[in-house]
Amino acid sequence: MMNRKLRMGMVGGGTDAFIGAIHRLAAFMDNQIEMVCGCFSVNPEISRSSGKLYYLPENRVYETYQEMFEKEAQLPEGERMDFVSIVTPNFVHFDPAMMALENGFHVVIDKPITFTLDEALKLKEKLDETGLTLALTHTYSGYPAVKHAKQMIANGELGKVRKVFVEYPQGWLSAKVEDQGNAQASWRTDPKKSGKAGCMGDIGTHAHHLAEYVTGLRVTELCAELNILVPNRMLDDDGAALLRFENGARGVLMATQIAAGEENGIKIRVYGEKGGLEWYQQEPNSLIVKWLDKPTQILRVGTSMNSAIAAHNTRTPGGHPEGYLEAFANIYRNFAMTVMAKMDGKEPTPEMLDFPGIEDGIRGMQFIDTVVKAGYDDSIKWVTL
Amino acid sequence: MMNRKLRMGMVGGGTDAFIGAIHRLAAFMDNQIEMVCGCFSVNPEISRSSGKLYYLPENRVYETYQEMFEKEAQLPEGERMDFVSIVTPNFVHFDPAMMALENGFHVVIDKPITFTLDEALKLKEKLDETGLTLALTHTYSGYPAVKHAKQMIANGELGKVRKVFVEYPQGWLSAKVEDQGNAQASWRTDPKKSGKAGCMGDIGTHAHHLAEYVTGLRVTELCAELNILVPNRMLDDDGAALLRFENGARGVLMATQIAAGEENGIKIRVYGEKGGLEWYQQEPNSLIVKWLDKPTQILRVGTSMNSAIAAHNTRTPGGHPEGYLEAFANIYRNFAMTVMAKMDGKEPTPEMLDFPGIEDGIRGMQFIDTVVKAGYDDSIKWVTL
Amino acid sequence: MMNRKLRMGMVGGGTDAFIGAIHRLAAFMDNQIEMVCGCFSVNPEISRSSGKLYYLPENRVYETYQEMFEKEAQLPEGERMDFVSIVTPNFVHFDPAMMALENGFHVVIDKPITFTLDEALKLKEKLDETGLTLALTHTYSGYPAVKHAKQMIANGELGKVRKVFVEYPQGWLSAKVEDQGNAQASWRTDPKKSGKAGCMGDIGTHAHHLAEYVTGLRVTELCAELNILVPNRMLDDDGAALLRFENGARGVLMATQIAAGEENGIKIRVYGEKGGLEWYQQEPNSLIVKWLDKPTQILRVGTSMNSAIAAHNTRTPGGHPEGYLEAFANIYRNFAMTVMAKMDGKEPTPEMLDFPGIEDGIRGMQFIDTVVKAGYDDSIKWVTL
Amino acid sequence: MMNRKLRMGMVGGGTDAFIGAIHRLAAFMDNQIEMVCGCFSVNPEISRSSGKLYYLPENRVYETYQEMFEKEAQLPEGERMDFVSIVTPNFVHFDPAMMALENGFHVVIDKPITFTLDEALKLKEKLDETGLTLALTHTYSGYPAVKHAKQMIANGELGKVRKVFVEYPQGWLSAKVEDQGNAQASWRTDPKKSGKAGCMGDIGTHAHHLAEYVTGLRVTELCAELNILVPNRMLDDDGAALLRFENGARGVLMATQIAAGEENGIKIRVYGEKGGLEWYQQEPNSLIVKWLDKPTQILRVGTSMNSAIAAHNTRTPGGHPEGYLEAFANIYRNFAMTVMAKMDGKEPTPEMLDFPGIEDGIRGMQFIDTVVKAGYDDSIKWVTL
Repeated sequence: MMNRKLRMGMVGGGTDAFIGAIHRLAAFMDNQIEMVCGCFSVNPEISRSSGKLYYLPENRVYETYQEMFEKEAQLPEGERMDFVSIVTPNFVHFDPAMMALENGFHVVIDKPITFTLDEALKLKEKLDETGLTLALTHTYSGYPAVKHAKQMIANGELGKVRKVFVEYPQGWLSAKVEDQGNAQASWRTDPKKSGKAGCMGDIGTHAHHLAEYVTGLRVTELCAELNILVPNRMLDDDGAALLRFENGARGVLMATQIAAGEENGIKIRVYGEKGGLEWYQQEPNSLIVKWLDKPTQILRVGTSMNSAIAAHNTRTPGGHPEGYLEAFANIYRNFAMTVMAKMDGKEPTPEMLDFPGIEDGIRGMQFIDTVVKAGYDDSIKWVTL
Repeated sequence: MMNRKLRMGMVGGGTDAFIGAIHRLAAFMDNQIEMVCGCFSVNPEISRSSGKLYYLPENRVYETYQEMFEKEAQLPEGERMDFVSIVTPNFVHFDPAMMALENGFHVVIDKPITFTLDEALKLKEKLDETGLTLALTHTYSGYPAVKHAKQMIANGELGKVRKVFVEYPQGWLSAKVEDQGNAQASWRTDPKKSGKAGCMGDIGTHAHHLAEYVTGLRVTELCAELNILVPNRMLDDDGAALLRFENGARGVLMATQIAAGEENGIKIRVYGEKGGLEWYQQEPNSLIVKWLDKPTQILRVGTSMNSAIAAHNTRTPGGHPEGYLEAFANIYRNFAMTVMAKMDGKEPTPEMLDFPGIEDGIRGMQFIDTVVKAGYDDSIKWVTL
Repeated sequence: MMNRKLRMGMVGGGTDAFIGAIHRLAAFMDNQIEMVCGCFSVNPEISRSSGKLYYLPENRVYETYQEMFEKEAQLPEGERMDFVSIVTPNFVHFDPAMMALENGFHVVIDKPITFTLDEALKLKEKLDETGLTLALTHTYSGYPAVKHAKQMIANGELGKVRKVFVEYPQGWLSAKVEDQGNAQASWRTDPKKSGKAGCMGDIGTHAHHLAEYVTGLRVTELCAELNILVPNRMLDDDGAALLRFENGARGVLMATQIAAGEENGIKIRVYGEKGGLEWYQQEPNSLIVKWLDKPTQILRVGTSMNSAIAAHNTRTPGGHPEGYLEAFANIYRNFAMTVMAKMDGKEPTPEMLDFPGIEDGIRGMQFIDTVVKAGYDDSIKWVTL
Repeated sequence: MMNRKLRMGMVGGGTDAFIGAIHRLAAFMDNQIEMVCGCFSVNPEISRSSGKLYYLPENRVYETYQEMFEKEAQLPEGERMDFVSIVTPNFVHFDPAMMALENGFHVVIDKPITFTLDEALKLKEKLDETGLTLALTHTYSGYPAVKHAKQMIANGELGKVRKVFVEYPQGWLSAKVEDQGNAQASWRTDPKKSGKAGCMGDIGTHAHHLAEYVTGLRVTELCAELNILVPNRMLDDDGAALLRFENGARGVLMATQIAAGEENGIKIRVYGEKGGLEWYQQEPNSLIVKWLDKPTQILRVGTSMNSAIAAHNTRTPGGHPEGYLEAFANIYRNFAMTVMAKMDGKEPTPEMLDFPGIEDGIRGMQFIDTVVKAGYDDSIKWVTL
């Protein structure tokens, strides 16, 4: 067993940013990972002051990520970082990720993995070549109840899957806040920073990933409409798709950022021949299971949710709710356990390996390409995914 | 004011049937309507024994509805029935309805109004000609919370409507119960008795009606897929449609009868520029209203749901839940008040006139035609409704 | 089988009253009962105009209930009323009830049954003497889910009962509305009209009844505090009691009318050795059953709530919610079925006989006496019930 | 600002223990605290192996806490621990806490603070003498929604508080698991290890603390019954108390560990003259606020819960649920911020100082003494607290 924590560097995530703070909370919680360096902002001032607040020595706070990768690579093993966490906007994903891999660092990266599908494929090539590990923070698949749902379906408990509803309603883009100083809104609605999809890239990918993760089934075709419902916005802020799954199941995917008053209401419902299940992230510790011929059950994280995979990803006893940060931390923890096992020359267990990676990233880019292709063209009904 | 109750006859609704009992409960509750005659079954034995259980004199229980309309029409006013309630399967809607109108009787009829759109148009013609009144039991529009939601949107409280989600998941057709002696399943999955749509005719029409009723907006185009997910079933048991509304709003309609474990989960969510609202029939006395910039509210029937239209359709104080039968009864009550007002030579108030009628029936048949046209053809994306 | 409906008279329940309307809705719904006469108000004007609105002939609308009982008693059977529904304030319960019994009429009466325990005992004596039937409208015991809960406990499904929480929070007396023209508040807070208890008489009795009904266990001792939390009110508007049940189980009863913002939140939770159950009237079609060693279940009226007693008291399919009026109607229906069976010379079934009666009424008066005795005396801890 | 993390030692919390893991998760999450030493078990083997898993150097893992305090005290500032986290059973609280204070270490300690009230008073004396800081992990007061509720009441938004319901139902002691190898059950039901109260010491204190914390009011008298409902158990496993608050408000406190099927259902409801609020830890990110004269609101952590104190204690955006660990972490974070501010020679802000401390600990011990005194004596109704 490794006698030290795994050492993390970070690109992005200054004190003025949102998702970086989430990544750090998730990374540190389990006492397996320590942050040893970072380049927290394109603004060196912010990077430095952030590093100080994160208790880093000054010489491990870098002005550019290029500098960071180069200098860290020259440090001895056990001192230099083991992996980098990339928490920048989408258009600054590929370059640091590729450079990290080239310098021998594992990678944790926010989704969507890259700006284009092509970039994602290049990362895969590099990963295959280097044998390094990459984790993609599709957070919702980190919830123990989601993992249990996946397990139940894989076990055949619901019978053959027939119908999937997956939705992600948000309301934070109901007004044109990108013009009102909201930094995140600003880059997320800008095709030069976000990519070819707005809502679908940001949260549609989460919904798509959740559907494929839970059911274990691929979407093979979709029929979609993407909308810009707030006038003069540059990217889609709403959309929906009819789904066809590889086994013949049908589905509906809904993602919107103009559902005024909604927070982060990602929900999935899956129905098979024998029953259905429902999970909702705003009440994430329950899995509602409905049956054709017996009473509805509420499975609870920490008590009646009895799969090994759920237990592996649970930290508190039943009734003491876990949340988003713990789901996020499950990705970091499983990634760290995998990397540490490999560093120890051991085979990671399936539980350790249960985190989204490059294949999920590629799949997400394919989803974006497909839903954008289908979403604006009234003449084409179904597009292959 | 009329010094007697309104007199009802019934076609269908024998003791072996389901929906007839619901109609009677709804009709009698408010002490405004009494049943004076009926033809309760094609089986005269059942019709007779049913009539006896309903405390009817033998001579007012008829063998055929033709006989009923003829004989009742010859009775003096105040003795003969005033209106007929038609609670038969879809393929026995048009004939008795038309005959009732021709004999001067008002009509209450279950949805979908007829077997074909053409029949519905003929009924409208006859109604225009006779000045008689027809009510269509789109039950869900009878709930006070639904009416309040409609009022809020009409008042502009949510701002311009942008997005509508309406869904009706059921699970009762998850197995092929039409082969297992389930009488209702049997006719509902039979195109000769149900019409060209199964799930979409039975509950898709409810979802469509609810969406147009609550928003006050027409769907102008839809993109749909209908599915037969239980092998060898003769009609659709599942489907979904992307919706475009006349004001540019977008929507998703989901209806399925193979969502194993679901009961009658019709739900609508509407989002405008300022906020959204949500109503779910399995908890029908609450209307959840979400706002862009203030806390979510739970409006409650009988207390904080303060519109005149909600109050008019509420019977109990807040916290004493009303349900499906009261919603159903609101249609009967408003219909009865309208007919009685007219019989008294008075103008019915808008509250009285607030029940679904022939226009809703026609609209429903148009929806069926459209969704069936769009639902099976992979080459056509959008169909005008 | 009787070839006519049961004939009801009513005392109280003019168009200016609340609970009378509820009784009529409940009585008429099932098409077994018709109202033939009434004395609807001490104000003859209101009584007359009410009778007209209820479609009664003028000669069956009486100025006093004494007149009503006398005149009705002289009418031939089948024309005269069969039973009277007494829906007046508490202090006008005993006299009309006794007079009805003396004149051979069955009785439905609102709770608490009388003004004093002694009166309740006298009614029992008269009932024993006459063999007539009395129903007491402890509405909450009319819900199918409550009946199913009782059945589960009787079956031993939860094991020995150990703990009971029963609560009835209301908020409508949070302000001193009895001084602001609220007629119901006015009599309910007046000891001359309501009796020795306010909140405990009005809703504490409901909570107590529900606890004993569901568990099948008697409370043998209680320790209580009653409070007047709105200054200068004349009767308790709040109170709580620790309960000891005959089998050694412990409980807590909470009733309050100053829980600002609450509607009619009566809820019961019962825990046995193997599991617990929870029912809440504001979501009355679900029974939540929690287990020591398996997942929580949601039993649903109309689908998974599979006892005969629940089915007998259910009118709609699962997912089409029933509510307060249907629960109320179950008391009327079972009462009517019992009376009609007796009139037919038949033995009523246990399902028919499942409505609250004189024993429940006496028990309620004992509860009031006991909780008032315990509730204001700081020197006495436990009082026998 | 301090240029290093705060350094923690731990007493208890080996890999075989429950609550220690929770403390570590809570401590590390925010990247402000690092663990530098510990004595994790009375079993040196377990202590050593635990220390290794926690990535501690061997020479900082001690065999006894006495050794730890002595040796750490001799290390230079910045190397030695700053504070100790004591996560042992109740009977091993006082000695290590007192010794820590005597050696100049701040203390975080689990509740109840000590075995006896007298010990708690001695700790207070030592704290006053040394000026050191102590945090008591009454976790539930760490939830942002709870803090917001406290703030609303302090602001007078509900008007004068009149009624409080606080309950903590658990089911884990429904069977006699202390005889079946459940280590936690074993010490918690043993008066020699747990103290004079079982259920009331473990979770009754949480309920009492929550009630006083949220309302800002002291309980002045209580009337209680404690029960041993599982035969042959040595300490109370159930109990309830009627409460009188200093301002005249009334309350009910319920705590039970034999509510089969319940998890950690701590809930508080507070009603004032203008409205009421409700918080339930199993859905901790919502605060339901009910009003006498306007619609019920759902305030949400991260969006509509707009107090500074809630914001200070929130880490994720609305709709991304936080849970028990984050509430726990808020105590650690505020404690750490307070200690670091003091070390920096600064005045901690009120937000930093908002964590339970020695006064809460003393109050908890007084509650235990009082409820035990009242709980078994049928001759005494009210006992002063």
